[in-house]
Amino acid sequence: MKATKGSAPSNELLIGTRPVIEAIEAGKTIDKVFIQKGLKGEVFKELWELIRAHRITYSSVPAEKLNRITRKNHQGVVAFTSAVVFQNLGEIVTRIYERGETPLVLLLDRITDVRNFGAICRTAECIGVHAVVIPSRGSAPVNYDALKTSAGALHHLAVCREANLKESISFLQQSGLKVFAVSEKAESLVYDTSLHGPIALIMGSEEDGVSPEYLKMCDGAVKLPMYGKIGSLNVSVATGAVLYDIVRQRLNHPQV
Amino acid sequence: MKATKGSAPSNELLIGTRPVIEAIEAGKTIDKVFIQKGLKGEVFKELWELIRAHRITYSSVPAEKLNRITRKNHQGVVAFTSAVVFQNLGEIVTRIYERGETPLVLLLDRITDVRNFGAICRTAECIGVHAVVIPSRGSAPVNYDALKTSAGALHHLAVCREANLKESISFLQQSGLKVFAVSEKAESLVYDTSLHGPIALIMGSEEDGVSPEYLKMCDGAVKLPMYGKIGSLNVSVATGAVLYDIVRQRLNHPQV
Repeated sequence: MKATKGSAPSNELLIGTRPVIEAIEAGKTIDKVFIQKGLKGEVFKELWELIRAHRITYSSVPAEKLNRITRKNHQGVVAFTSAVVFQNLGEIVTRIYERGETPLVLLLDRITDVRNFGAICRTAECIGVHAVVIPSRGSAPVNYDALKTSAGALHHLAVCREANLKESISFLQQSGLKVFAVSEKAESLVYDTSLHGPIALIMGSEEDGVSPEYLKMCDGAVKLPMYGKIGSLNVSVATGAVLYDIVRQRLNHPQV
Repeated sequence: MKATKGSAPSNELLIGTRPVIEAIEAGKTIDKVFIQKGLKGEVFKELWELIRAHRITYSSVPAEKLNRITRKNHQGVVAFTSAVVFQNLGEIVTRIYERGETPLVLLLDRITDVRNFGAICRTAECIGVHAVVIPSRGSAPVNYDALKTSAGALHHLAVCREANLKESISFLQQSGLKVFAVSEKAESLVYDTSLHGPIALIMGSEEDGVSPEYLKMCDGAVKLPMYGKIGSLNVSVATGAVLYDIVRQRLNHPQV
């Protein structure tokens, strides 16, 4: 399953409450809204309702932060549109099964480095991952740098931004996927674990790996062997090595 | 085989002919010497002989370039010391065999992006690659950024800087290693190729892959399967995926 090509080539800056409201109402994908702390008024209330209804990521910030983003009259609100059009995970899973394909979904738990995120998306696209799921908070911005590092993959890859990864994990499990975490603390090597069926893989942050709350929910955890002294791979390299082992396993055991 | 910890934590700038001569004579590892075009004189001649004798990488540049590097009186010569101590490939291969280990060597053909180089070294260290071989010209600088991206791996990894990669390939083949190129044009998937024995792997530039002159010399070429539209992996991700398949093959078939 491939996403349709994103309409926006890069992210755009929207300045002021009314332009942000209009963009949301026009169906533009908003990466993030920055709202000045303590902002009030009727127009802001209208924006706030849209933010909640569309589950748009926002951040309350001091006026100085907005002044650093733009010198124009921002009235307490600026927003960035997204370089990609986010997709609906439920619809994607339905389409995968309709096509008779074996789902392969990648969940990214707090991958905040934009270059790592871009490189992961590049690999995911090359391998045919059906969707990359990121949380709406605490993830790398899906911006022009991500698009560039992804070598354009973000134009061809389905990215789903979900408010709650726990709900995404539950949903995927209910949809018949086994969810595996990649974790240094895992007991099984990826090579010794059967990953032929419908799979979702969770990659965690380089600092502390997959969150314990997600690890608990997983159907299993796998690791890559380590022999050196530093014992820590770049997360985009680790993602590639595990995804390619799933490809290898599936090539040897195609689903009939 | 692990390299001894590099003595220099980062690269140092040497300004002027005499300081560069002294550094070379003191055995410091020089990353690169920049020499002003048309420079002459007795002291320069002395430096030039050392550069040739030690096969040090140099570049002839206009005076403006040197003026941008330093405002001090450079007398037409500046140099950077290297963040790592380069090692001798011949000595490394000897030590691998003395220890009864199966050689695994990585050659990097024109990997110029310092972050890719660092990430590759990080993976190489985690996997236990015996040496990373780079050409003395046309490779990423082995500097503080490389060290940082490598997560410190460059302090534990043997890096060999060779004047001529063709000679390195010949030497490795004469030493009993099979040399494989990773190339999109390869006919065999890495999974279908036996990589249990003494192996050297060549990774090429992201732009045009492994140089034809090296491809010709190789004992074989392997590729990773590709399913997407962009059909191009980040080189550090591709290196990780292939190296980890070598690890997998060796785990299933340990050398007795």
